[in-house]
Formats: sequence, structure tokens, C-alpha cells
Amino acid sequence: MSVFTPVSPEQLSHWLKSYSVGTLTGLEPILEGIENTNYFVATTQGRFVLTLFERLGAQELFFYLGLMSHLARHGIPCPAPVADLSDNLLGSLNGKPAALVTRLPGSSRGKPSKRDCAQIGALLVRMHLAGRSYGGYLENPRGPKWWRATEPKLRPFLAEDHQQLLDKELRFQASCRFPDLPRGPVHADLFRDNALFDASGITGVIDFYFAGVDSWLFDVAVCVNDWCLVDPAHDGTLDASLALTLLGAYAETRAFTALERSAWPAMLRAAALRFWLSRLHDFHLPRAGKLVHMHDPEHFRNILALRSAADFTAPWPD
Amino acid sequence: MSVFTPVSPEQLSHWLKSYSVGTLTGLEPILEGIENTNYFVATTQGRFVLTLFERLGAQELFFYLGLMSHLARHGIPCPAPVADLSDNLLGSLNGKPAALVTRLPGSSRGKPSKRDCAQIGALLVRMHLAGRSYGGYLENPRGPKWWRATEPKLRPFLAEDHQQLLDKELRFQASCRFPDLPRGPVHADLFRDNALFDASGITGVIDFYFAGVDSWLFDVAVCVNDWCLVDPAHDGTLDASLALTLLGAYAETRAFTALERSAWPAMLRAAALRFWLSRLHDFHLPRAGKLVHMHDPEHFRNILALRSAADFTAPWPD
Repeated sequence: MSVFTPVSPEQLSHWLKSYSVGTLTGLEPILEGIENTNYFVATTQGRFVLTLFERLGAQELFFYLGLMSHLARHGIPCPAPVADLSDNLLGSLNGKPAALVTRLPGSSRGKPSKRDCAQIGALLVRMHLAGRSYGGYLENPRGPKWWRATEPKLRPFLAEDHQQLLDKELRFQASCRFPDLPRGPVHADLFRDNALFDASGITGVIDFYFAGVDSWLFDVAVCVNDWCLVDPAHDGTLDASLALTLLGAYAETRAFTALERSAWPAMLRAAALRFWLSRLHDFHLPRAGKLVHMHDPEHFRNILALRSAADFTAPWPD
Repeated sequence: MSVFTPVSPEQLSHWLKSYSVGTLTGLEPILEGIENTNYFVATTQGRFVLTLFERLGAQELFFYLGLMSHLARHGIPCPAPVADLSDNLLGSLNGKPAALVTRLPGSSRGKPSKRDCAQIGALLVRMHLAGRSYGGYLENPRGPKWWRATEPKLRPFLAEDHQQLLDKELRFQASCRFPDLPRGPVHADLFRDNALFDASGITGVIDFYFAGVDSWLFDVAVCVNDWCLVDPAHDGTLDASLALTLLGAYAETRAFTALERSAWPAMLRAAALRFWLSRLHDFHLPRAGKLVHMHDPEHFRNILALRSAADFTAPWPD
């Protein structure tokens, strides 16, 4: 379970007096989070999610909440932060920075269909284009700088063959920077559990708390590595047909550039490396005293191994 | 019918390319409007309302769209204007200023219940408080200045007893200015047809295109004159129980001041006068070439006569 900072109905009722969302009718902890404390909140006026931020600093939080607010203003179905009576998106509750955002309907897909992949690709490109006019800036906090800073801390925990894979990949990635790829604010964590669907299709994208400015193609690669697998429960083997569907739906609104085409195989590896590293970090160096839901690092080591294998061909629409 | 500027699906599909809302799946004219051209718009991503503004100038439109955007950001259920890829809320379509806003679910109530009146009162006060931090300013465009400018144009059309009622009321209102009433952005046209409900209650407030800065109490009076009648289809006799319910629900979040209490009877008359004048104006001086849905001016003459009668007591919660 992952409620780090409990909130009582009395505390929340009092806090909501500085918002324009009506009075509290329901409060339910969300147990899935691994970074923050989250509650479903119902009021006489609607359904919301309350988040108490356990780790993030003010600079990051202003970027994230501002980005979500910007995207929502552009019609992107994402949680819209609610401003309080002083017009602030970020408040404070029980000693933690806190925000109230709108709650989207729907639930996530375990095994995405072709249609689901088309819908996430079409929404992803709209998010990228809508994000261009956002004024905030935050470098992707899990980018190459973080990889290089984190790797030495993990070294003591790794078996030799895993260490070799990691060394090889860091050298490879260092050899292929693409500074001219189209860039902007990206979600950077758009896994299946961060998109919601109902019977009519995709209803929205959630959890922007790993967002940052990076290449749009990196965001696409993160998606493809999670959405377009032959069997997500088994291993990381790519389903070429699903990948082509997602990429094709994206390209309908914005054609990929020649540079993106050439960067694609390396980007799939970079996206795998980023999550292997962060899962290793969470596994071997968990935050003190926190009993959190843990993801298996092996899944992304396997994906990285597959994507960097000599016989791997990265699917690309032509 | 009230579509002044037709829009074809081809024109709209092209226009929507500069938005992040997906592709067009439905387009349906809305016939109820009397000021603007409105369409229901469906896309792969959601439901929207397209408005082409036939009369309003840029200054007013920026105030209105900015206010709706501000209130939506505060969790008020109102149409949220959608920004285009250049981050503008106001665009241009077929030669007219145009905006795309989110479409709210629900439909309006013909005969409001006590519960409906409580819900509109509770939402109205939240709109007032959320609007305080809005930076835009536009004087209520149908305020006392407009009354005085409009009255001479209507004089030739009025029967003598109606002219006397109007003269008397203008003199009365001129004698009772209340500059110290709490003020802010107000909807100023929150009739029953501008609020939507579903089975679970109120779902939102629409049509902010008569909004402006005025006293909050004026907004309350406009509401009470339309929502709290014994029989809206018959005459303007106030239902004291409904009025007390609406006022009581409002006062739960913000207590009325002593000055508001003393201004209340005059404000009910001011709100009646404003709509009598505008309906007379639309009736006798319609815009050239426009075949629009017309409201009967007599309804508000009757309300004004009732509210200014010597034996009328304005309901007030104590």
C-alpha cells in the first residue's frame, strides 16, 4: 500500500473551503501509487483526485501542474489541476505540497488492442503539438544525466553480465546524441496504467509526475516499449503490427522526420535503459521506511537486451 | 431559427486542424440562440460547442472567454474554452470571431424544484468567489448606462402606462445607487435555460455572453426573478419558499452583508428592469435581416410591476 500521509475527511473538508468545488461527499485512498499519496475525492460538484507530493520539489511541481493545466486547456483529456480561491494550483495539506485535479472516467487496459494502440498514438501526437506553446521548462529528470549519476550507485548490486549490458548501453547511448530531434514537454511515463479507456475508447492520460522536456521520439519509444508487446505478462518481445499501428496513428497528425527515423532504434534502447535503471534504483535503494509497490527491474533488462540484440529490427512505418 | 453563419463539416474539419481535439465526427446546429451562431461539435476526443460571434467585439470576447476559462480552472462546471495550437482561445471562422468550448451534459429545467434552487444558489456563490481572482474587467454591458441610453429609443413604441412605469423605475433606480455592494465578475443572465441538470443534480452553467462586473447581488436578483416563480408559464409572482431556499443556499458559503439586505428589494426591480428593456429593444428594434427567437417583453414588465408594487415584500433569509 502506498498512502504515506493520511488525510482525514475532517482535514480535507476544512482544506476544501479554500476551493470552489463544493463540499466533501467521499474520500478513498488510492493504493497503486509509488511516489505520492493519492486519494479519490468526491464533492457535491464532481470527482477529483487529491495528491500529496512526497518527494517532488516546487520547481518540478510548478512545471507538472502548469503542463497539465495547459494541456487540459487545449482539450487534451488529462487531469486538470483545480485552482484555489487565491488562484494557486499548488497548496499545502498536512505539511506536504498538495494539489486537487479532476478525475477522469475509465480504467486502464491490461492487454491493448490494435485500436487502443491507434488511439494512444493519436492522442500522444496531439499532446506533443499542444505542449509546444507551454512556457515552462524542466529537463527530463530521468534523462542521460540521471543515468550517469545513478549507474555507479547500482554497480555493487549487479551481476557481471548485467553490468556488462549496462556499460555497453551507456557507451552506445553516449555515442548517439540527437540534439536536433524535435523536442518539447513529454509525458515520459506513458505506460498502459497511465491511460484510461471506457467502452467508447480512450478517455484520458494521467500521472504527469515524470514529465519533462525531451525529444518527442523518446516519448513515443516509452509508449511502444510498453503498449506494443506480443505478451506484456511474458517478456518484452515487440509486436511489430501493434508498433506500426501506434506509429502510423501518430504520423497521421505529424509526419516523422528523417532524423527521427534514423534515431528510432537507439531511442527504443534509451527508453528501455531509463526504466531498467529506475527500477533497479527503486529495488536496491528504496526510500527509507517506505513500503511501496515495486516493479520488477528484470522486465526492462529483458527489453533492453532484446532491443539491442544484433538481429533486432525496429518496426517503422514507410 | 438562429444560425446566422453556416459552417460545413469540410470547413470545420479544416479549422480543427489547428486544435488538439481530434477529428470531426459530428456537427449539428443549435437553434435556440438569439445572439450568436452555435453548433454542437463531436470529435474523436470529446463533445464541444462551436460559437461564431455575430455581434460581440474583441474586448468583450476576451473578457468572456477568459472568465469561462478562469472559472473552469477553479472547478466551476462551465464551458471551458479550448485553446488552439497558437494558445489562443479566440479564433476566426467564415469571417466571424469563433471559439470552441467544452460541451456540458444535462438539460435545463422548465419548472425548478426546491432542490434545483438550492443547487443553483450554492453554485452561484462559488462562481462569485472563484471569479474574484479573475484579472479581466468589463462593466456589465446591460447596466444603468445602457438603460439610460436605450430608454429614449424605445419611447415611441410604448403605451402611456408602460412609459410611466419605465419613467418611475428609472427615477427610482437613479435614486438608489449602492457603490459599496460586494462586486465582481457576474454571469448576469443566469436564467433556467442557462443551467443544466441530470438525474444527479446540477451539471453546469452555460452562456456567459452577457457577463460583466457588477454587484453579486444583482446576479442573485436575476436568478431569483427567473428561478423562484410560483408558475413561470403564468406570471412573475415570486414563490417565497423557493426564493428563501436559493438565498439560503447562497448564504451558506458567503453570508450576505447588511448593505445587501437593504439593497435587495431595489435589486429585484433593477434585474426586472434590465430584462424588460432588452426584450423591448429586441422586439421593437431587431437587428436587420435576422430572424431570431424572440422573448416576450411583457413577462418582465409584469415582473417589474409586481416587484415595485406597494404591497410587495421581498423574501429574505434571517
